[in-house]
Amino acid sequence: MTPLHHLLNPRSIAVIGASNDPKRIGGRPIDLLKRNYSGEIYPINLSRPEIQGIKAYSSLLDVEKDIDLALIALPAPIVNDALKDCIKKGIDACIIMSSGFAEEGEAGTALQDEIIATAREGGIRIIGPNCIGVGNNKIGSWATFAGGAEHLPPVGELSVITQSGGFASLVLSLLKQRNIGLNHWIAFGNQCDVDFSECLEYLATDPDTKVILGYLEGIRDGNKLANALKKARENGKPVVIVKVGSSEAGAIAAASHTATLAGEDALYDAVLKQYGAYRAETVEEAMQVAYTCLYAPALPKGGNLCVYTISGGFGVLMADAASRAGLKVPALPEEVQDNLRELLPFSSVRNPIDTTAQLLNDFSLVEKSMEIVSTSGNCDMLACYLVGLDNSPTLQPKIYAVLKSFREKNPEAIVALVLSPTPEIREGYEKLGYLVFEDASEPMRPLAALRFFGQSFTSHPAEVSSIEPFSNPSSDIILDETTAKKIISDAGVPIPKEALVSNRTDAMEAAAQIGGPVAMKIVSPDLPHKSDIGGVELSLEDPEEVGLAYDRIIENIRRNAPNARINGVLVSPMISDGLEFSLGIQNDAVFGPMLMVGLGGIFIEIMQDVSFRKAPVSKAEAQSMLAELRGQKILHGVRGKPPADIEGLVDAIVALGDFAVANASQIDSVDINPLLVLPQGKGVVAVDAVIALKNRNAQVSAAHAAQVTHKWRK
Amino acid sequence: MTPLHHLLNPRSIAVIGASNDPKRIGGRPIDLLKRNYSGEIYPINLSRPEIQGIKAYSSLLDVEKDIDLALIALPAPIVNDALKDCIKKGIDACIIMSSGFAEEGEAGTALQDEIIATAREGGIRIIGPNCIGVGNNKIGSWATFAGGAEHLPPVGELSVITQSGGFASLVLSLLKQRNIGLNHWIAFGNQCDVDFSECLEYLATDPDTKVILGYLEGIRDGNKLANALKKARENGKPVVIVKVGSSEAGAIAAASHTATLAGEDALYDAVLKQYGAYRAETVEEAMQVAYTCLYAPALPKGGNLCVYTISGGFGVLMADAASRAGLKVPALPEEVQDNLRELLPFSSVRNPIDTTAQLLNDFSLVEKSMEIVSTSGNCDMLACYLVGLDNSPTLQPKIYAVLKSFREKNPEAIVALVLSPTPEIREGYEKLGYLVFEDASEPMRPLAALRFFGQSFTSHPAEVSSIEPFSNPSSDIILDETTAKKIISDAGVPIPKEALVSNRTDAMEAAAQIGGPVAMKIVSPDLPHKSDIGGVELSLEDPEEVGLAYDRIIENIRRNAPNARINGVLVSPMISDGLEFSLGIQNDAVFGPMLMVGLGGIFIEIMQDVSFRKAPVSKAEAQSMLAELRGQKILHGVRGKPPADIEGLVDAIVALGDFAVANASQIDSVDINPLLVLPQGKGVVAVDAVIALKNRNAQVSAAHAAQVTHKWRK
Repeated sequence: MTPLHHLLNPRSIAVIGASNDPKRIGGRPIDLLKRNYSGEIYPINLSRPEIQGIKAYSSLLDVEKDIDLALIALPAPIVNDALKDCIKKGIDACIIMSSGFAEEGEAGTALQDEIIATAREGGIRIIGPNCIGVGNNKIGSWATFAGGAEHLPPVGELSVITQSGGFASLVLSLLKQRNIGLNHWIAFGNQCDVDFSECLEYLATDPDTKVILGYLEGIRDGNKLANALKKARENGKPVVIVKVGSSEAGAIAAASHTATLAGEDALYDAVLKQYGAYRAETVEEAMQVAYTCLYAPALPKGGNLCVYTISGGFGVLMADAASRAGLKVPALPEEVQDNLRELLPFSSVRNPIDTTAQLLNDFSLVEKSMEIVSTSGNCDMLACYLVGLDNSPTLQPKIYAVLKSFREKNPEAIVALVLSPTPEIREGYEKLGYLVFEDASEPMRPLAALRFFGQSFTSHPAEVSSIEPFSNPSSDIILDETTAKKIISDAGVPIPKEALVSNRTDAMEAAAQIGGPVAMKIVSPDLPHKSDIGGVELSLEDPEEVGLAYDRIIENIRRNAPNARINGVLVSPMISDGLEFSLGIQNDAVFGPMLMVGLGGIFIEIMQDVSFRKAPVSKAEAQSMLAELRGQKILHGVRGKPPADIEGLVDAIVALGDFAVANASQIDSVDINPLLVLPQGKGVVAVDAVIALKNRNAQVSAAHAAQVTHKWRK
Repeated sequence: MTPLHHLLNPRSIAVIGASNDPKRIGGRPIDLLKRNYSGEIYPINLSRPEIQGIKAYSSLLDVEKDIDLALIALPAPIVNDALKDCIKKGIDACIIMSSGFAEEGEAGTALQDEIIATAREGGIRIIGPNCIGVGNNKIGSWATFAGGAEHLPPVGELSVITQSGGFASLVLSLLKQRNIGLNHWIAFGNQCDVDFSECLEYLATDPDTKVILGYLEGIRDGNKLANALKKARENGKPVVIVKVGSSEAGAIAAASHTATLAGEDALYDAVLKQYGAYRAETVEEAMQVAYTCLYAPALPKGGNLCVYTISGGFGVLMADAASRAGLKVPALPEEVQDNLRELLPFSSVRNPIDTTAQLLNDFSLVEKSMEIVSTSGNCDMLACYLVGLDNSPTLQPKIYAVLKSFREKNPEAIVALVLSPTPEIREGYEKLGYLVFEDASEPMRPLAALRFFGQSFTSHPAEVSSIEPFSNPSSDIILDETTAKKIISDAGVPIPKEALVSNRTDAMEAAAQIGGPVAMKIVSPDLPHKSDIGGVELSLEDPEEVGLAYDRIIENIRRNAPNARINGVLVSPMISDGLEFSLGIQNDAVFGPMLMVGLGGIFIEIMQDVSFRKAPVSKAEAQSMLAELRGQKILHGVRGKPPADIEGLVDAIVALGDFAVANASQIDSVDINPLLVLPQGKGVVAVDAVIALKNRNAQVSAAHAAQVTHKWRK
């Protein structure tokens, strides 16, 4: 039994700071619990012997029986004392609804630290503070003061976890309004102890929860989140998350009012997707996706949608919306089109299908044609626009009958109906396993989300390969180019055949050995901007040129950076037939090592065309990173160029990801730029690399750190 | 009085093919007209003396009085005869509801051509065929068989024009449901005569229409559309359009079922925006934007939004949604924040504003704080999340009272309220001039649309400068580089100082005159791919190199393309400090000359980062084209480069636009690529240019045309 069990399934609840006034924060939970809860309720109030008709106690310690959960509704400064009483009483979980903690500045943070210390010492778990409470709809334990909690949705298989009390209240009324069944409902507020991820992990194994809906502003531990999401995925439970703070104004507001580190929104985006959570942009979208996951009879095997309408115009509109959502609306196979045409002579049968009004003459045509379409082999999901049929008293029973018959023969078909139904008609179709929407564009994102879960639930997460961390030969925070390249080469990212030399003769000899035109670069831990000070020479063809270039570089450095430590001059081949990519690691405070890949050079700076994942990544995940790049088609060969070595690039991404995990405790960032991707079969080569280590002894300058990491900021 | 006047405001209506059965296409309009229409109704039916209780006529010609409008509900093959009767009777407008015309293949197209010819000859105007009809809600003339037309929305200032009957029916029920007032309602079907643009132009000057909502699949005449949109803009009437066919599947479906040329969706997108129409993605969005335009007390002067909430979480969510919609959520000025903090000590006051629950203690704080915010000078619009206050019987009257008082003092403030109201409460706020939404993200696109109209209504359209068309010296369809460059240079797009030479001595002399390194290119109308066959030499430093290069080029062409006509070799300066852009014209079959600008080279091919406008464009419009480019920040100087000559680029765009208009009858496309944009103050220079003329004598090969225009396809 996990520590959250008593908290979320209490057999008895004490309300500390209980009030006789059902409108007050300490009175409302008692009023709500009285309505639906069959467990014991113990109001704790210093002066009243009875609260709202229930026997009250002046102290928690006066209660004789065991208490599963304490609900604390006291002013912030006296919460800690109440918490100590809970511990004395042997209660193992409490909800602190009171505000006035970390969300209100320094004094509040001190109070919050105090209760955390008390809880750790006494072994009690806390939800909150600054939260509106927790509800278990099955047992009616609505330990909350939320508005609207007297009008509850039915009991069902959706569970909700939210950082925002406003979202928690709104969801209750939306679920009620749409008649969607609810199981657990957890508004966790400041998450000083029990956090989003812990609740998520609990629900991931809760047999009564089928779909999880979350609202999130920020978390502290990305690994914990990733593990909880993994567990939900393993158990086949769709997780739908509204993560706010994507805009600058939003992120600042989120950071200020939740007292957690918001972190880079792009990293949340990447991690949620990577571990199989669907991120919704709006509450409305989240509700539609959750609804669809609850009611769909199966997950689709592919992303092909067939659009079936009684109005050509809406067929076009729905095909557009499907395409925006990332679904395909492929032409049906010719023989399927022929079969349809035979049935419906005046209709468009390519996909979208426009039956025209002829179907009003014979409703059996609906079933027959839907049957043909859904078994065409080219249709993973079906979206049907039937507005106008459903609200006619003569037509509605006819269309219902054929859809009922279709469903009996096709129990697993995923079909979204667009209707303008009464609640009763809606419920009738939902009971048949249809998804019902009222706007023609609305089903597309939810259906695309189903497809996303279908793919995610069958994907295999990356396995961590057990490689040794590198041993750092240097005391520097920023490792120089040769050291960095040696390290990434050992990790499996290819580097050019090159030589570090310290005199002109060796330079000439190295160039001869490498063959062809060479480049030469100064190597110094103190000179990250090599070319600005004359430390780089390119396209050197013959030995004499190489010798002269060596002298020029040394002379330039002596003049321009006389105090720089010089490790030598690097002689490397000039490589002309590669595509410039950029590959890196950012060791994020929340998520740990994050991989980044993007087209290099001007693309990364001007177009910010990059993709992120939490390390490690599998080959499939690395491929999906590349597929996300807007400019990814350059890899397939444009302007007459040959296709690039995608496999080599994927291998490099996977290798760097494994490296990142093995070295998470010592690296701050890795920046391989450019990584040249050569034509197919020739691999990739890291032309330059910088490794920044964690600042163990504060040697790194702010300027250095900014220079290494600035390109991550979107 | 425009030709549409009788059609849209008929004093009497004949229904040809009238039926006694109110469910049939010829019976339903009579049933509907009887309910609300006070004009004369003349059913025309061969055999019955009375139809649905109204005196019927066996022939139109038997009706003694004048008839304003004839409604034809006959099988397609006999429509033409009915049309001839209409002409004999002196009717000047009719609606043909019958299907079986161009939407059903060749035979139908022939019938449609027949009725067009009859109408032209007889001087009668047609709406349709294949349409569900027309309604004037003020006079109750519902000449339609649309489903739902017995449940009408109230009379009001929204007018609707739609190509899709399904959309027309749906809008009726949505307007009814939301209690939004309707004026004209026109479903025009195949638009064989009266088209979308003509209806739009009529409504643009209709005094009872304030906002126009359109649904469109395709049009034939882009100039007509642009002129109609201009008129609506001049008259300050927001036009909201659902244009479908943005996806491939959608575009194919639209083309097949409306029998009009759908055209490039990207061009519609550009033209609608350019002429001030708001393009909505979904019906839901279109309804929300139309609603907002109808109810907003003013248009905003800027795009700054203040978010005001009683829940911090929703503040973040709304700031994110605002940012996605293109609105700004700027921090309020420090002194404004101080004033707010004094009023609401525990709140977040930066923007988004989170009042927290303290405002429940004193509702006058709402008015006071909204007043401070709305007069802060940094707030063009306000979005307030108040869900939870509005559905409490005790709180609702209090919040209503303070919002009423706020409105009295701020009659022009644009305020969107997010509530979960009853219809009565909604109406109460709407009467006060508030916009009411039920989802927190929902107001953002409509508010951004208001901002769009605010900007559009104060912008000045480009004036056409009267320049002469160029006289074409060649009989070729594809003009060679020197000819093309001479022409665009005359039009005002700068070209390099260069020389066309025909022997090695002249080449050497030209290089010396130009100075610095030069490039040399073969000039031939037969060789569009110059470099593939050795026709280009770059970076030639001294006269000797130039001479040798000349010989190599001539030798290469003799060997590789012995039959090509050679106009000479072009000697040009090498220009190294410019940004590669691409600038062009595509003379579109629907829209006429369209301008295109994008970053050049790999950007245009890989990222498809281009912007379109219909020529001509003003300087402001050219600037907005550049602002649309995802990679536009390259112009402001990145990687230590100086800012580019944006003014020079804008001038070139405007000049090419004027050129395009003057030469619309002779050019097919112009492709300037690269156009180098030099550092600020140094202008731009067209390094290469191709002009393709209209194919007057079919000389152009398909391959040539494809090569010139392929990069336009998105």
